[in-house]
Amino acid sequence: MTFSQLLSAAIRQKGNPVLVGLDPRWESLPQSCKTGAVADSFERFCKTIIDITAPLVPAVKPQAAFFEQYGPDGMTALRNVIRYAKQQGLLVIFDGKRNDIGSTAEAYAAGILGSESAWGADAMTVSPYLGDDSIEPFVKTAVERGAGVYVLVKTSNPGGKMLQDLEVEGQPIYRRVAEYVERLAQRTAGSVGAVVGATWAEQLAELRQVMPSAPFLVPGYGTQGGTAEDVAKAFHRDGSGALINNSRGIIFAHLSASDPEIRWEDAVESATRRMIAELHTLTER
Amino acid sequence: MTFSQLLSAAIRQKGNPVLVGLDPRWESLPQSCKTGAVADSFERFCKTIIDITAPLVPAVKPQAAFFEQYGPDGMTALRNVIRYAKQQGLLVIFDGKRNDIGSTAEAYAAGILGSESAWGADAMTVSPYLGDDSIEPFVKTAVERGAGVYVLVKTSNPGGKMLQDLEVEGQPIYRRVAEYVERLAQRTAGSVGAVVGATWAEQLAELRQVMPSAPFLVPGYGTQGGTAEDVAKAFHRDGSGALINNSRGIIFAHLSASDPEIRWEDAVESATRRMIAELHTLTER
Repeated sequence: MTFSQLLSAAIRQKGNPVLVGLDPRWESLPQSCKTGAVADSFERFCKTIIDITAPLVPAVKPQAAFFEQYGPDGMTALRNVIRYAKQQGLLVIFDGKRNDIGSTAEAYAAGILGSESAWGADAMTVSPYLGDDSIEPFVKTAVERGAGVYVLVKTSNPGGKMLQDLEVEGQPIYRRVAEYVERLAQRTAGSVGAVVGATWAEQLAELRQVMPSAPFLVPGYGTQGGTAEDVAKAFHRDGSGALINNSRGIIFAHLSASDPEIRWEDAVESATRRMIAELHTLTER
Repeated sequence: MTFSQLLSAAIRQKGNPVLVGLDPRWESLPQSCKTGAVADSFERFCKTIIDITAPLVPAVKPQAAFFEQYGPDGMTALRNVIRYAKQQGLLVIFDGKRNDIGSTAEAYAAGILGSESAWGADAMTVSPYLGDDSIEPFVKTAVERGAGVYVLVKTSNPGGKMLQDLEVEGQPIYRRVAEYVERLAQRTAGSVGAVVGATWAEQLAELRQVMPSAPFLVPGYGTQGGTAEDVAKAFHRDGSGALINNSRGIIFAHLSASDPEIRWEDAVESATRRMIAELHTLTER
Protein backbone atom coordinates (compact mmCIF):
# COMPACT_ATOMS: atom_id res chain seq x y z
CA MET A 1 0.00 0.00 0.00
CA THR A 2 1.24 3.49 -0.78
CA PHE A 3 0.93 6.27 1.77
CA SER A 4 -1.72 7.89 -0.36
CA GLN A 5 -3.82 4.73 -0.26
CA LEU A 6 -3.36 4.36 3.51
CA LEU A 7 -4.36 7.98 3.98
CA SER A 8 -7.44 7.76 1.78
CA ALA A 9 -8.58 4.57 3.47
CA ALA A 10 -8.17 6.10 6.94
CA ILE A 11 -10.07 9.27 6.03
CA ARG A 12 -12.83 7.26 4.37
CA GLN A 13 -13.13 4.89 7.31
CA LYS A 14 -13.48 7.63 9.90
CA GLY A 15 -15.45 9.90 7.58
CA ASN A 16 -13.45 13.04 8.38
CA PRO A 17 -9.99 14.59 7.83
CA VAL A 18 -9.21 15.63 11.41
CA LEU A 19 -5.56 15.35 12.45
CA VAL A 20 -5.12 15.64 16.22
CA GLY A 21 -1.87 17.36 17.16
CA LEU A 22 -0.10 15.85 20.17
CA ASP A 23 1.72 18.90 21.58
CA PRO A 24 2.02 18.24 25.31
CA ARG A 25 2.97 21.25 27.41
CA TRP A 26 3.46 20.87 31.14
CA GLU A 27 1.76 24.15 32.02
CA SER A 28 -1.41 23.22 30.12
CA LEU A 29 -1.68 19.60 31.25
CA PRO A 30 -4.80 18.67 33.25
CA GLN A 31 -3.91 18.51 36.94
CA SER A 32 -4.81 14.83 37.11
CA CYS A 33 -2.13 14.00 34.51
CA LYS A 34 0.64 15.78 36.39
CA THR A 35 1.94 12.89 38.43
CA GLY A 36 5.54 11.78 38.39
CA ALA A 37 8.14 12.86 35.87
CA VAL A 38 7.22 15.18 33.00
CA ALA A 39 7.95 12.60 30.31
CA ASP A 40 5.78 9.96 32.02
CA SER A 41 2.97 12.49 32.42
CA PHE A 42 3.21 13.40 28.74
CA GLU A 43 3.01 9.76 27.78
CA ARG A 44 -0.03 9.11 29.95
CA PHE A 45 -1.73 12.30 28.74
CA CYS A 46 -1.13 11.51 25.06
CA LYS A 47 -2.27 7.91 25.45
CA THR A 48 -5.54 9.12 26.96
CA ILE A 49 -5.98 11.57 24.08
CA ILE A 50 -5.41 8.63 21.72
CA ASP A 51 -7.97 6.49 23.58
CA ILE A 52 -10.54 9.27 23.19
CA THR A 53 -9.84 10.24 19.60
CA ALA A 54 -8.84 6.95 17.92
CA PRO A 55 -12.46 5.88 17.33
CA LEU A 56 -13.22 9.30 15.81
CA VAL A 57 -10.32 10.54 13.65
CA PRO A 58 -7.90 9.05 11.12
CA ALA A 59 -4.55 10.40 12.32
CA VAL A 60 -2.43 12.06 15.00
CA LYS A 61 0.61 14.30 14.69
CA PRO A 62 3.02 14.24 17.63
CA GLN A 63 5.20 17.36 17.69
CA ALA A 64 8.76 16.18 18.37
CA ALA A 65 9.84 19.46 20.01
CA PHE A 66 7.70 19.04 23.10
CA PHE A 67 9.12 15.60 23.75
CA GLU A 68 12.70 16.42 22.80
CA GLN A 69 12.58 19.31 25.28
CA TYR A 70 12.78 16.73 28.07
CA GLY A 71 15.77 14.86 26.71
CA PRO A 72 16.03 11.10 26.14
CA ASP A 73 13.16 10.46 28.58
CA GLY A 74 10.92 12.69 26.50
CA MET A 75 12.00 10.84 23.36
CA THR A 76 11.16 7.52 24.98
CA ALA A 77 7.69 8.88 25.72
CA LEU A 78 7.40 9.97 22.08
CA ARG A 79 8.31 6.52 20.83
CA ASN A 80 5.78 4.90 23.18
CA VAL A 81 3.08 7.36 22.13
CA ILE A 82 3.71 6.62 18.44
CA ARG A 83 3.54 2.87 19.07
CA TYR A 84 0.35 3.21 21.06
CA ALA A 85 -1.30 5.33 18.38
CA LYS A 86 -0.40 2.73 15.75
CA GLN A 87 -1.85 -0.04 17.91
CA GLN A 88 -5.08 1.94 18.14
CA GLY A 89 -5.28 2.05 14.35
CA LEU A 90 -4.23 5.67 13.84
CA LEU A 91 -1.92 7.01 11.18
CA VAL A 92 1.01 8.83 12.77
CA ILE A 93 2.71 11.89 11.30
CA PHE A 94 6.02 12.66 13.01
CA ASP A 95 6.17 16.47 13.06
CA GLY A 96 9.85 17.30 13.35
CA LYS A 97 10.41 19.48 10.27
CA ARG A 98 13.70 17.63 9.83
CA ASN A 99 16.08 18.65 7.09
CA ASP A 100 19.64 17.88 6.17
CA ILE A 101 21.75 16.82 3.26
CA GLY A 102 22.62 13.51 1.63
CA SER A 103 23.36 10.66 3.97
CA THR A 104 22.27 12.72 7.00
CA ALA A 105 18.81 13.12 5.52
CA GLU A 106 18.88 9.37 4.81
CA ALA A 107 19.57 8.74 8.49
CA TYR A 108 16.56 10.81 9.55
CA ALA A 109 14.30 9.13 7.00
CA ALA A 110 15.54 5.63 7.84
CA GLY A 111 14.95 6.20 11.54
CA ILE A 112 11.55 7.84 11.37
CA LEU A 113 9.60 6.33 8.47
CA GLY A 114 8.01 2.92 8.32
CA SER A 115 6.98 0.26 10.78
CA GLU A 116 10.46 -1.28 10.89
CA SER A 117 12.10 2.03 11.81
CA ALA A 118 13.05 3.11 15.32
CA TRP A 119 10.20 5.63 15.54
CA GLY A 120 7.70 3.85 13.32
CA ALA A 121 5.83 6.82 11.85
CA ASP A 122 3.68 6.71 8.70
CA ALA A 123 4.81 10.14 7.55
CA MET A 124 6.96 13.08 8.61
CA THR A 125 7.30 16.78 7.95
CA VAL A 126 10.44 18.19 6.28
CA SER A 127 11.74 21.70 5.58
CA PRO A 128 12.90 22.63 2.06
CA TYR A 129 15.55 25.36 2.54
CA LEU A 130 18.39 22.93 1.76
CA GLY A 131 16.98 22.13 -1.67
CA ASP A 132 16.10 19.10 -3.76
CA ASP A 133 19.03 16.89 -2.86
CA SER A 134 17.98 17.28 0.79
CA ILE A 135 14.39 16.20 0.05
CA GLU A 136 15.12 13.25 -2.23
CA PRO A 137 16.48 10.91 0.48
CA PHE A 138 13.23 11.38 2.44
CA VAL A 139 11.16 10.72 -0.67
CA LYS A 140 13.13 7.62 -1.62
CA THR A 141 12.78 6.07 1.83
CA ALA A 142 9.12 7.03 2.03
CA VAL A 143 8.30 5.33 -1.26
CA GLU A 144 10.25 2.20 -0.35
CA ARG A 145 8.39 1.88 2.93
CA GLY A 146 4.90 2.96 1.94
CA ALA A 147 5.30 6.11 4.02
CA GLY A 148 4.73 9.81 3.34
CA VAL A 149 6.65 13.09 3.42
CA TYR A 150 5.05 16.49 3.89
CA VAL A 151 7.19 19.40 2.68
CA LEU A 152 6.71 22.84 4.25
CA VAL A 153 5.33 25.07 1.51
CA LYS A 154 3.34 27.92 3.10
CA THR A 155 3.40 27.87 6.88
CA SER A 156 0.68 29.21 9.16
CA ASN A 157 2.75 31.77 11.10
CA PRO A 158 2.84 35.48 10.16
CA GLY A 159 6.64 35.41 9.84
CA GLY A 160 6.38 32.70 7.20
CA LYS A 161 6.03 35.58 4.75
CA MET A 162 9.64 36.65 5.29
CA LEU A 163 11.10 34.08 2.89
CA GLN A 164 8.10 32.21 1.53
CA ASP A 165 6.43 35.28 -0.02
CA LEU A 166 9.53 36.80 -1.61
CA GLU A 167 8.90 37.13 -5.33
CA VAL A 168 11.14 35.49 -7.91
CA GLU A 169 10.26 36.43 -11.48
CA GLY A 170 6.82 37.53 -10.36
CA GLN A 171 6.10 34.40 -8.32
CA PRO A 172 6.40 33.88 -4.58
CA ILE A 173 8.95 31.35 -3.38
CA TYR A 174 6.24 29.18 -1.86
CA ARG A 175 4.86 28.68 -5.35
CA ARG A 176 8.24 27.46 -6.57
CA VAL A 177 8.33 25.00 -3.72
CA ALA A 178 4.75 23.99 -4.53
CA GLU A 179 5.62 23.26 -8.16
CA TYR A 180 8.52 21.12 -6.99
CA VAL A 181 6.30 19.26 -4.52
CA GLU A 182 3.70 18.65 -7.22
CA ARG A 183 6.35 17.03 -9.43
CA LEU A 184 7.35 14.77 -6.55
CA ALA A 185 3.71 13.98 -5.75
CA GLN A 186 3.07 12.96 -9.36
CA ARG A 187 6.20 10.84 -9.50
CA THR A 188 5.34 9.05 -6.23
CA ALA A 189 1.58 8.67 -6.64
CA GLY A 190 0.90 11.05 -3.75
CA SER A 191 3.56 9.91 -1.28
CA VAL A 192 4.79 13.51 -1.09
CA GLY A 193 2.51 16.20 0.26
CA ALA A 194 2.54 19.83 1.30
CA VAL A 195 2.15 21.74 4.55
CA VAL A 196 -0.07 24.75 3.85
CA GLY A 197 -1.37 26.88 6.72
CA ALA A 198 -5.11 27.31 7.33
CA THR A 199 -4.39 30.95 8.08
CA TRP A 200 -3.92 31.75 4.36
CA ALA A 201 -7.27 30.91 2.76
CA GLU A 202 -6.49 32.57 -0.55
CA GLN A 203 -3.17 30.78 -0.95
CA LEU A 204 -4.78 27.47 -0.02
CA ALA A 205 -7.00 27.76 -3.08
CA GLU A 206 -4.07 28.82 -5.27
CA LEU A 207 -1.87 26.02 -3.96
CA ARG A 208 -4.52 23.34 -4.42
CA GLN A 209 -4.54 24.32 -8.10
CA VAL A 210 -0.74 24.23 -8.32
CA MET A 211 -0.58 20.88 -6.49
CA PRO A 212 -3.53 18.74 -7.62
CA SER A 213 -1.64 15.52 -6.82
CA ALA A 214 -0.26 16.33 -3.36
CA PRO A 215 -1.98 15.47 -0.10
CA PHE A 216 -2.19 18.59 2.10
CA LEU A 217 -1.41 18.86 5.79
CA VAL A 218 -3.15 22.01 6.99
CA PRO A 219 -2.11 23.42 10.37
CA GLY A 220 -3.44 26.59 11.97
CA TYR A 221 -7.06 25.53 12.44
CA GLY A 222 -8.69 26.77 15.63
CA THR A 223 -6.30 28.44 18.05
CA GLN A 224 -4.23 30.04 15.27
CA GLY A 225 -7.37 31.45 13.63
CA GLY A 226 -8.10 29.17 10.66
CA THR A 227 -11.79 28.30 10.18
CA ALA A 228 -13.65 25.54 8.38
CA GLU A 229 -14.46 28.02 5.63
CA ASP A 230 -10.77 28.86 5.31
CA VAL A 231 -9.68 25.26 4.82
CA ALA A 232 -12.48 24.34 2.42
CA LYS A 233 -10.25 24.96 -0.58
CA ALA A 234 -7.69 22.40 0.55
CA PHE A 235 -10.00 19.53 -0.40
CA HIS A 236 -10.72 17.96 -3.73
CA ARG A 237 -14.33 18.00 -4.90
CA ASP A 238 -14.94 14.59 -3.35
CA GLY A 239 -13.79 15.79 0.07
CA SER A 240 -10.44 14.00 -0.05
CA GLY A 241 -6.94 15.40 -0.28
CA ALA A 242 -6.24 17.04 3.07
CA LEU A 243 -5.74 16.47 6.75
CA ILE A 244 -6.74 19.41 8.93
CA ASN A 245 -4.68 19.71 12.10
CA ASN A 246 -5.85 20.98 15.44
CA SER A 247 -3.59 20.68 18.46
CA ARG A 248 -4.32 22.93 21.43
CA GLY A 249 -7.98 23.39 20.46
CA ILE A 250 -8.52 19.68 21.03
CA ILE A 251 -5.97 18.42 23.53
CA PHE A 252 -6.28 21.41 25.84
CA ALA A 253 -9.99 21.98 25.23
CA HIS A 254 -10.58 21.93 29.01
CA LEU A 255 -8.79 25.28 29.28
CA SER A 256 -11.36 27.04 27.10
CA ALA A 257 -14.45 24.99 27.99
CA SER A 258 -17.52 27.06 28.92
CA ASP A 259 -18.26 24.62 31.73
CA PRO A 260 -15.37 24.88 34.22
CA GLU A 261 -16.49 21.62 35.87
CA ILE A 262 -16.21 19.54 32.70
CA ARG A 263 -13.91 16.49 32.85
CA TRP A 264 -10.91 17.20 30.65
CA GLU A 265 -11.45 13.96 28.75
CA ASP A 266 -15.01 15.03 27.93
CA ALA A 267 -13.75 18.43 26.78
CA VAL A 268 -11.34 16.66 24.39
CA GLU A 269 -14.09 14.47 22.99
CA SER A 270 -16.51 17.41 22.56
CA ALA A 271 -13.90 19.51 20.82
CA THR A 272 -13.02 16.65 18.47
CA ARG A 273 -16.67 16.00 17.61
CA ARG A 274 -17.28 19.74 17.13
CA MET A 275 -14.40 20.02 14.67
CA ILE A 276 -15.57 16.94 12.79
CA ALA A 277 -19.04 18.49 12.51
CA GLU A 278 -17.63 21.84 11.35
CA LEU A 279 -15.67 20.14 8.58
CA HIS A 280 -18.52 17.79 7.73
CA THR A 281 -20.78 20.60 6.60
CA LEU A 282 -18.05 21.51 4.11
CA THR A 283 -17.25 18.14 2.63
CA GLU A 284 -20.97 17.36 2.25
CA ARG A 285 -21.49 20.22 -0.14
CA MET B 1 29.71 35.16 29.30
CA THR B 2 28.11 35.48 25.89
CA PHE B 3 28.42 32.71 23.33
CA SER B 4 30.71 34.89 21.28
CA GLN B 5 33.08 35.30 24.23
CA LEU B 6 33.02 31.55 24.96
CA LEU B 7 33.75 30.83 21.34
CA SER B 8 36.61 33.30 21.05
CA ALA B 9 38.18 32.03 24.25
CA ALA B 10 37.96 28.42 23.10
CA ILE B 11 39.47 29.16 19.69
CA ARG B 12 42.22 31.25 21.27
CA GLN B 13 43.02 28.61 23.85
CA LYS B 14 43.38 25.79 21.32
CA GLY B 15 44.90 28.05 18.68
CA ASN B 16 42.72 26.75 15.83
CA PRO B 17 39.11 26.83 14.58
CA VAL B 18 38.59 23.10 13.94
CA LEU B 19 35.11 21.78 14.67
CA VAL B 20 35.00 17.99 14.77
CA GLY B 21 31.71 16.59 13.47
CA LEU B 22 30.39 13.60 15.40
CA ASP B 23 28.45 11.75 12.69
CA PRO B 24 28.58 8.09 13.71
CA ARG B 25 27.60 5.60 11.00
CA TRP B 26 27.49 1.92 11.75
CA GLU B 27 28.99 0.86 8.42
CA SER B 28 32.03 3.13 8.88
CA LEU B 29 32.73 2.40 12.55
CA PRO B 30 36.09 0.78 13.33
CA GLN B 31 35.56 -2.93 13.92
CA SER B 32 36.81 -2.68 17.50
CA CYS B 33 33.96 -0.26 18.35
CA LYS B 34 31.24 -2.54 17.03
CA THR B 35 30.41 -4.39 20.19
CA GLY B 36 26.94 -4.56 21.63
CA ALA B 37 24.00 -2.39 20.59
CA VAL B 38 24.45 0.30 17.95
CA ALA B 39 23.68 3.16 20.34
CA ASP B 40 26.25 1.92 22.88
CA SER B 41 28.83 1.51 20.14
CA PHE B 42 28.15 5.06 18.92
CA GLU B 43 28.59 6.39 22.43
CA ARG B 44 31.88 4.57 22.97
CA PHE B 45 33.17 5.60 19.54
CA CYS B 46 32.28 9.27 20.05
CA LYS B 47 33.77 9.36 23.54
CA THR B 48 37.04 8.01 22.16
CA ILE B 49 36.99 10.67 19.43
CA ILE B 50 36.47 13.24 22.18
CA ASP B 51 39.36 11.84 24.21
CA ILE B 52 41.63 12.18 21.19
CA THR B 53 40.48 15.59 19.97
CA ALA B 54 39.63 17.50 23.17
CA PRO B 55 43.27 18.50 23.82
CA LEU B 56 43.57 19.73 20.23
CA VAL B 57 40.37 21.49 19.09
CA PRO B 58 37.84 23.95 20.56
CA ALA B 59 34.53 22.32 19.67
CA VAL B 60 32.54 19.31 18.47
CA LYS B 61 29.30 19.11 16.50
CA PRO B 62 27.20 16.01 17.06
CA GLN B 63 24.75 15.45 14.20
CA ALA B 64 21.40 14.57 15.77
CA ALA B 65 20.19 12.53 12.77
CA PHE B 66 22.66 9.70 13.28
CA PHE B 67 21.62 9.26 16.89
CA GLU B 68 17.89 9.82 16.31
CA GLN B 69 18.01 7.09 13.68
CA TYR B 70 18.32 4.55 16.49
CA GLY B 71 15.38 5.82 18.52
CA PRO B 72 15.39 6.73 22.22
CA ASP B 73 18.54 4.63 22.79
CA GLY B 74 20.36 6.67 20.18
CA MET B 75 19.15 9.86 21.84
CA THR B 76 20.44 8.67 25.20
CA ALA B 77 23.83 8.09 23.57
CA LEU B 78 23.67 11.62 22.13
CA ARG B 79 22.95 13.12 25.54
CA ASN B 80 25.82 11.17 27.09
CA VAL B 81 28.19 12.22 24.30
CA ILE B 82 27.27 15.89 24.77
CA ARG B 83 27.84 15.65 28.52
CA TYR B 84 31.15 13.94 28.06
CA ALA B 85 32.33 16.53 25.55
CA LYS B 86 31.43 19.31 27.98
CA GLN B 87 33.32 17.57 30.77
CA GLN B 88 36.37 17.44 28.52
CA GLY B 89 36.17 21.20 28.05
CA LEU B 90 34.78 21.24 24.52
CA LEU B 91 32.11 23.56 23.17
CA VAL B 92 29.20 21.54 21.79
CA ILE B 93 27.10 22.53 18.80
CA PHE B 94 23.92 20.46 18.50
CA ASP B 95 23.42 20.02 14.76
CA GLY B 96 19.73 19.35 14.33
CA LYS B 97 18.67 22.14 11.93
CA ARG B 98 15.56 22.45 14.05
CA ASN B 99 12.83 24.84 13.02
CA ASP B 100 9.28 25.52 14.05
CA ILE B 101 7.00 28.35 15.05
CA GLY B 102 6.26 30.20 18.28
CA SER B 103 6.01 28.09 21.37
CA THR B 104 7.20 24.99 19.49
CA ALA B 105 10.46 26.73 18.64
CA GLU B 106 10.65 27.79 22.28
CA ALA B 107 10.38 24.15 23.31
CA TYR B 108 13.28 23.15 21.07
CA ALA B 109 15.42 26.04 22.28
CA ALA B 110 14.59 25.45 25.95
CA GLY B 111 15.48 21.77 25.65
CA ILE B 112 18.69 22.07 23.69
CA LEU B 113 20.48 25.28 24.72
CA GLY B 114 22.32 25.92 27.95
CA SER B 115 23.83 23.83 30.70
CA GLU B 116 20.52 23.55 32.57
CA SER B 117 18.70 22.18 29.52
CA ALA B 118 17.99 18.50 28.86
CA TRP B 119 20.62 18.27 26.12
CA GLY B 120 23.04 20.89 27.43
CA ALA B 121 24.51 22.21 24.18
CA ASP B 122 26.34 25.53 23.80
CA ALA B 123 24.81 26.24 20.41
CA MET B 124 22.53 24.72 17.81
CA THR B 125 21.78 24.97 14.09
CA VAL B 126 18.39 26.21 12.85
CA SER B 127 16.71 26.43 9.44
CA PRO B 128 15.15 29.74 8.31
CA TYR B 129 12.34 28.75 5.90
CA LEU B 130 9.65 29.51 8.51
CA GLY B 131 10.80 33.13 8.87
CA ASP B 132 11.73 35.57 11.58
CA ASP B 133 9.10 34.63 14.16
CA SER B 134 10.45 31.08 14.00
CA ILE B 135 14.03 32.22 14.65
CA GLU B 136 13.35 34.73 17.44
CA PRO B 137 12.49 32.13 20.13
CA PHE B 138 15.84 30.44 19.53
CA VAL B 139 17.65 33.78 19.70
CA LYS B 140 15.88 34.85 22.88
CA THR B 141 16.71 31.62 24.69
CA ALA B 142 20.27 31.64 23.40
CA VAL B 143 20.91 35.15 24.71
CA GLU B 144 19.35 34.38 28.09
CA ARG B 145 21.54 31.32 28.51
CA GLY B 146 24.80 32.51 27.02
CA ALA B 147 24.33 30.11 24.13
CA GLY B 148 24.49 30.46 20.35
CA VAL B 149 22.31 29.87 17.29
CA TYR B 150 23.64 29.21 13.79
CA VAL B 151 21.16 29.94 11.02
CA LEU B 152 21.48 28.08 7.69
CA VAL B 153 22.40 30.70 5.11
CA LYS B 154 24.27 29.01 2.23
CA THR B 155 24.59 25.28 2.64
CA SER B 156 27.39 23.13 1.26
CA ASN B 157 25.29 20.76 -0.90
CA PRO B 158 24.79 21.31 -4.66
CA GLY B 159 20.98 21.31 -4.25
CA GLY B 160 21.22 24.22 -1.82
CA LYS B 161 21.08 26.39 -4.94
CA MET B 162 17.47 25.42 -5.60
CA LEU B 163 16.01 27.94 -3.14
CA GLN B 164 19.03 29.73 -1.71
CA ASP B 165 20.25 31.10 -5.03
CA LEU B 166 16.90 32.25 -6.41
CA GLU B 167 17.12 35.96 -7.14
CA VAL B 168 14.81 38.48 -5.53
CA GLU B 169 15.24 42.00 -6.86
CA GLY B 170 18.67 41.09 -8.19
CA GLN B 171 19.87 39.45 -4.97
CA PRO B 172 19.96 35.77 -4.08
CA ILE B 173 17.77 34.61 -1.21
CA TYR B 174 20.82 33.56 0.82
CA ARG B 175 21.87 37.18 0.87
CA ARG B 176 18.52 38.22 2.29
CA VAL B 177 18.91 35.63 5.00
CA ALA B 178 22.48 36.84 5.57
CA GLU B 179 21.32 40.43 6.06
CA TYR B 180 18.75 39.24 8.56
CA VAL B 181 21.36 37.15 10.40
CA GLU B 182 23.73 40.13 10.53
CA ARG B 183 21.03 42.26 12.20
CA LEU B 184 20.51 39.52 14.78
CA ALA B 185 24.27 39.13 15.28
CA GLN B 186 24.63 42.86 15.91
CA ARG B 187 21.70 42.93 18.31
CA THR B 188 23.03 39.97 20.29
CA ALA B 189 26.76 40.73 20.26
CA GLY B 190 27.49 37.71 18.10
CA SER B 191 25.20 35.12 19.71
CA VAL B 192 23.68 34.48 16.28
CA GLY B 193 25.84 33.07 13.51
CA ALA B 194 25.59 31.68 10.01
CA VAL B 195 26.13 28.30 8.37
CA VAL B 196 28.00 28.90 5.11
CA GLY B 197 29.38 25.96 3.15
CA ALA B 198 33.10 25.64 2.41
CA THR B 199 32.14 24.47 -1.06
CA TRP B 200 31.25 28.03 -2.15
CA ALA B 201 34.49 29.99 -1.78
CA GLU B 202 33.24 33.04 -3.66
CA GLN B 203 30.07 33.33 -1.60
CA LEU B 204 32.06 32.88 1.61
CA ALA B 205 33.92 36.07 0.83
CA GLU B 206 30.72 37.90 -0.14
CA LEU B 207 28.92 36.67 2.96
CA ARG B 208 31.73 37.61 5.32
CA GLN B 209 31.32 41.17 4.02
CA VAL B 210 27.52 41.07 4.47
CA MET B 211 27.85 39.57 7.97
CA PRO B 212 30.86 41.17 9.68
CA SER B 213 29.33 40.51 13.15
CA ALA B 214 28.22 36.89 12.78
CA PRO B 215 30.33 33.88 13.75
CA PHE B 216 30.47 31.41 10.85
CA LEU B 217 30.05 27.67 10.99
CA VAL B 218 31.61 26.33 7.80
CA PRO B 219 30.77 22.73 6.82
CA GLY B 220 31.96 20.97 3.70
CA TYR B 221 35.69 20.93 4.43
CA GLY B 222 37.49 17.80 3.33
CA THR B 223 35.22 15.02 2.12
CA GLN B 224 32.76 17.44 0.50
CA GLY B 225 35.59 19.20 -1.33
CA GLY B 226 36.22 22.43 0.57
CA THR B 227 39.93 23.31 1.02
CA ALA B 228 41.84 25.54 3.42
CA GLU B 229 42.16 28.09 0.64
CA ASP B 230 38.37 28.00 0.13
CA VAL B 231 37.57 28.74 3.75
CA ALA B 232 40.20 31.46 4.19
CA LYS B 233 37.65 34.18 3.51
CA ALA B 234 35.43 33.08 6.42
CA PHE B 235 37.89 34.51 8.94
CA HIS B 236 38.41 38.04 10.14
CA ARG B 237 41.85 39.51 9.65
CA ASP B 238 42.93 38.35 13.10
CA GLY B 239 41.99 34.74 12.32
CA SER B 240 38.84 34.73 14.42
CA GLY B 241 35.21 34.51 13.34
CA ALA B 242 34.71 30.98 12.09
CA LEU B 243 34.63 27.33 13.03
CA ILE B 244 35.57 24.97 10.21
CA ASN B 245 33.81 21.64 10.41
CA ASN B 246 35.19 18.30 9.33
CA SER B 247 33.27 15.15 10.12
CA ARG B 248 34.09 12.03 8.08
CA GLY B 249 37.56 13.29 7.19
CA ILE B 250 38.50 13.13 10.86
CA ILE B 251 36.33 10.55 12.58
CA PHE B 252 36.60 7.98 9.79
CA ALA B 253 40.17 8.86 8.82
CA HIS B 254 41.13 5.19 9.17
CA LEU B 255 39.09 4.41 6.02
CA SER B 256 41.27 6.63 3.83
CA ALA B 257 44.59 6.23 5.63
CA SER B 258 47.53 5.40 3.39
CA ASP B 259 48.77 2.92 5.99
CA PRO B 260 46.15 0.15 6.21
CA GLU B 261 47.70 -1.07 9.48
CA ILE B 262 47.27 2.25 11.30
CA ARG B 263 45.28 2.19 14.56
CA TRP B 264 42.02 4.04 13.93
CA GLU B 265 42.66 6.29 16.93
CA ASP B 266 46.01 7.32 15.46
CA ALA B 267 44.36 8.02 12.11
CA VAL B 268 41.89 10.36 13.89
CA GLU B 269 44.67 12.19 15.66
CA SER B 270 46.76 12.54 12.49
CA ALA B 271 43.81 13.83 10.49
CA THR B 272 42.98 16.36 13.20
CA ARG B 273 46.57 17.60 13.41
CA ARG B 274 46.79 17.75 9.63
CA MET B 275 43.67 19.92 9.38
CA ILE B 276 44.94 22.20 12.15
CA ALA B 277 48.19 22.62 10.25
CA GLU B 278 46.39 23.32 6.97
CA LEU B 279 44.33 26.06 8.58
CA HIS B 280 47.26 27.38 10.56
CA THR B 281 49.15 28.43 7.47
CA LEU B 282 46.13 30.57 6.62
CA THR B 283 45.50 32.28 9.93
CA GLU B 284 49.19 33.06 10.29
CA ARG B 285 49.24 35.21 7.20
